Amino acid sequence: MSTGWSTPAADVLRAGAIGPITSFDPETTPGFHGDKAAGADLLAQRGEVLADLQELLYANGRAGDHRSVLLVLQGMDTAGKGGIVRHVGGLMDPQGLSIRGFGKPTKEELQHDFLWRIHRALPPAGRIGIFDRSHYEDVLPVRVHNLVPQSVWEKRYDLINQFESELVAGGTTVLKCCLVVSKDEQKTRLAQRLERPDKYWKYNPGDVDERSHWDAYLEAYQAIFDLTDRDSAPWFVIPSNRKWFARLAVCELLIDALTGLHLDWPPADFDVEAEKKRLAAAD
Amino acid sequence: MSTGWSTPAADVLRAGAIGPITSFDPETTPGFHGDKAAGADLLAQRGEVLADLQELLYANGRAGDHRSVLLVLQGMDTAGKGGIVRHVGGLMDPQGLSIRGFGKPTKEELQHDFLWRIHRALPPAGRIGIFDRSHYEDVLPVRVHNLVPQSVWEKRYDLINQFESELVAGGTTVLKCCLVVSKDEQKTRLAQRLERPDKYWKYNPGDVDERSHWDAYLEAYQAIFDLTDRDSAPWFVIPSNRKWFARLAVCELLIDALTGLHLDWPPADFDVEAEKKRLAAAD
Repeated sequence: MSTGWSTPAADVLRAGAIGPITSFDPETTPGFHGDKAAGADLLAQRGEVLADLQELLYANGRAGDHRSVLLVLQGMDTAGKGGIVRHVGGLMDPQGLSIRGFGKPTKEELQHDFLWRIHRALPPAGRIGIFDRSHYEDVLPVRVHNLVPQSVWEKRYDLINQFESELVAGGTTVLKCCLVVSKDEQKTRLAQRLERPDKYWKYNPGDVDERSHWDAYLEAYQAIFDLTDRDSAPWFVIPSNRKWFARLAVCELLIDALTGLHLDWPPADFDVEAEKKRLAAAD
Repeated sequence: MSTGWSTPAADVLRAGAIGPITSFDPETTPGFHGDKAAGADLLAQRGEVLADLQELLYANGRAGDHRSVLLVLQGMDTAGKGGIVRHVGGLMDPQGLSIRGFGKPTKEELQHDFLWRIHRALPPAGRIGIFDRSHYEDVLPVRVHNLVPQSVWEKRYDLINQFESELVAGGTTVLKCCLVVSKDEQKTRLAQRLERPDKYWKYNPGDVDERSHWDAYLEAYQAIFDLTDRDSAPWFVIPSNRKWFARLAVCELLIDALTGLHLDWPPADFDVEAEKKRLAAAD
């Protein structure tokens, strides 16, 4: 089956392949040569593949397999993290998902190291975890605003690599997606939220203030890609001015990650023929 | 808009309205006069209404409203609890769902009272929680097999009522659905699981043993309806031989519960016109 991609998403969107973030164009659809309608059609098809793979993972988890998948979502405000959860997460059985969002740390969370709340939110065996923001917040706004001294945040890249290596060793497939919108597109999306009373709840005045730190954020993202994009826990950069493309890309990356697990239906842990007889004889 | 129901689901399926469970027919579609195709069409339509109401609840939760909804699912093995999570839960944004399953209690859970693990799993503000099994397990298999002395389990009905009253007082809308299949239909579904290697993982030899306690289970369900069906935390009995009807019914009951919250979009907690100007002036 043609997947509509001239180059696999996992290759063309890999952080190491896209060049410097400062010259990245979020309007493009790298590796994919269809339009919005083609993208939506393909998403519906590929969504079924994704759902089937998710059920395999879940079934194996129930049968004692300890593996799981963790999708980390980062990105500028309005880049569409929530939309990915809704429209890509929504392609799957919610029972097999474990979705966690990370806002400003609570008082309790601040009394622990920055990975404490992350550990507690990891997906159980057989689940696909989706993090809407993550431990990378601790080297993004925290770095841009020096919420902790540089001597503290600059050590976090190594700590993150070490933490993710442990996760992977424990059977979690980690993939990280950074959704990128252009500064103009963000302005448009913020303005739309101010036009519609049903979108006010998504608007945060602080988002406008953050725009004045745009370049510092790009620098912080570049540092993340340079220091924490590894084959065992790769970063993908998702151009997100076109929402349909971002959804299609993340769906494809999840399919790729799940396919790599080479899952099969777990064998029966009972005698199938004996059970058939026992059931037939039952009342 | 016609909803396809001659009598509202919340009335016709209410435990107090269906008569004794021993004479209940799970093959019927009470209150609904369409076939499977009409039911599927209607589910797609009503699913959009449900998703919109869920977004309203979520938006209000984000804006500080403490309300939530809790859907408790109980039912015989193979009755389709997982299917409800997948096909009704799947109509909504997974971000606004909080899904928890309750299996055999763990060693840690057994060291606490039976409601301990339930408390820990309650939906946060703004979410729709779905419990796949629940605290009612502690008066179902526990009662049927006397896993604790009768003097202990018989006190639990009052404890459950008290617990649910506290939940409701705290802003949680509670609705409880018992999925009912006939004994024959269960046999057919168990046999299907034994025919397909991709269904083996759903088969549990213990399910066949439980069939010999069928009447005791019906008695335990009847006790639940008699003792814990209250207007503030109602029980609904869902005939589930026809999966499409069960899904449609639960969707409708959730819509009814959410409509009862009279939700509106939360007002802006900022000056909209001032923000428009600030954004327009921003870089």
